[in-house]
Amino acid sequence: METVVEGENSRIVISKTAPTVIIGERINPTGKKRLTAALKERDFDYIIKEAIRQVEAGAHIIDVNVGASGIDEEDLLPEVVKKVADAVDVPICIDSSNPAALEAALKVCPGRPLLNSTTAEEKNLETVLPLARKYNVPVIGLVNDERGIPKDTDTRVAIAKKILDRAVKLGIAPEDILIDVLVLPIGADTETGKVTFDTARRVSEELDLNIVVGASNVSHGLPDRKVINTAFFALGAACGMTAYIADPTVIEITQTILAADLLLGKDEWAGNYISFYRKKEASKNAAA
Amino acid sequence: METVVEGENSRIVISKTAPTVIIGERINPTGKKRLTAALKERDFDYIIKEAIRQVEAGAHIIDVNVGASGIDEEDLLPEVVKKVADAVDVPICIDSSNPAALEAALKVCPGRPLLNSTTAEEKNLETVLPLARKYNVPVIGLVNDERGIPKDTDTRVAIAKKILDRAVKLGIAPEDILIDVLVLPIGADTETGKVTFDTARRVSEELDLNIVVGASNVSHGLPDRKVINTAFFALGAACGMTAYIADPTVIEITQTILAADLLLGKDEWAGNYISFYRKKEASKNAAA
Repeated sequence: METVVEGENSRIVISKTAPTVIIGERINPTGKKRLTAALKERDFDYIIKEAIRQVEAGAHIIDVNVGASGIDEEDLLPEVVKKVADAVDVPICIDSSNPAALEAALKVCPGRPLLNSTTAEEKNLETVLPLARKYNVPVIGLVNDERGIPKDTDTRVAIAKKILDRAVKLGIAPEDILIDVLVLPIGADTETGKVTFDTARRVSEELDLNIVVGASNVSHGLPDRKVINTAFFALGAACGMTAYIADPTVIEITQTILAADLLLGKDEWAGNYISFYRKKEASKNAAA
Repeated sequence: METVVEGENSRIVISKTAPTVIIGERINPTGKKRLTAALKERDFDYIIKEAIRQVEAGAHIIDVNVGASGIDEEDLLPEVVKKVADAVDVPICIDSSNPAALEAALKVCPGRPLLNSTTAEEKNLETVLPLARKYNVPVIGLVNDERGIPKDTDTRVAIAKKILDRAVKLGIAPEDILIDVLVLPIGADTETGKVTFDTARRVSEELDLNIVVGASNVSHGLPDRKVINTAFFALGAACGMTAYIADPTVIEITQTILAADLLLGKDEWAGNYISFYRKKEASKNAAA
């Protein structure tokens, strides 16, 4: 199953056999004062720099989320999406919980962006899926519904299937549905990781869909978070996770994702792994 | 399936639901000049220090291998096994390709050591499996036979099954057979990692056996080996690998194994992960 995401002059394929796709998560104001200010002031230089930094660090797609109190997403999201898409040579992931903002951004975004996201809540399915159909773009489905985020694997898989079925009924191709299996802080509930990995494996095997996960949350409240996050990314690669919403400027994360690809036969002759290493050494030497 | 390994006053359980077991690999002269000299000179202080360091770093079992040119294993292995077993409070993994040396060590080793290893070669099956039966100890089976190490998963799984069948016919309990799925350098053959992980998953699921792997080899010849090794340990945890032959004095390795356990629900309340972190911080502070 190949999901194709495109920029104006770029094309990324998400699939089980392709290298893992990194969706740069840094353009999201949650918990980020400086970025929130930049968004409010329309300081596009700062925002574009964040986009470029992530692409240089290894991001294949740039997520753009402008959701913060006091920001009119419907107004700002299309503007930021356009600026970022013009500045970098990779596809965009349009990220909002506001369907009107999603559509406004879809109207101006070049290529074939990724839509982030719908849940299985009726109000979401009824508004977001038709957008994916209308603009012919792939869309991320989160495995939660009116009842919240289920604690068990069976219900999460059933929700993924519900999103898939509804999408197909609307005429969306199955390869344009990606499932976010959702990750909760492991410190609060030791079982939650297993549920996430089991859900990923089952959605990947039983529904044959691509999986995308935003994972930084998993280590919340624990020490040495980077160790847990990198272990998560490596583990997930063995469970059908095909794309991560992550911060590629954290070298350990990008390098672990590349190492996992190498170990799983997705990096012939270790080409990606070694060229990342060389770039890293070159920039170390340049700094010294 | 629970494999029980015992020291004189210690007990380690290897199973899919228990925390991953670390078998300290440092007492093995291959490529180690200083240790080779210590073994030849019977410098037991040095060897015992290596054992204690590993236990302090997180090893649950200590592997003892004395195989080097100019060393009479049948003579030296039992002596070293006895000294190490007396010095540390964890079980021993008796490691030799010489069945006579294995038996000499079994005669003096307290508790219920782990026997490392047999292959599926007839000459091995006929000599090592009877030792496991006679001394009632668990034994590691390597998935190679007279033809060498198979390149494909099917043959590796078939070899694991052959070892299991032969052992059961001799009256050995299935839980006393552990399979080493073998890891080759990924730089030389990009497909080899996938074969190792697939074999682990199938042996774990289809034969319900515990898996033990020595993994340092996988990154041979590549830069930033630690990144590949830690990714391997995290990935493997998702594929049924229940014990690793590894160097626990490399903090990143031990911490990644603990993080993977935590993510897979094998570390309630993150107890092991957090206490390792505290010990690490305490020794940092002591050093400062």
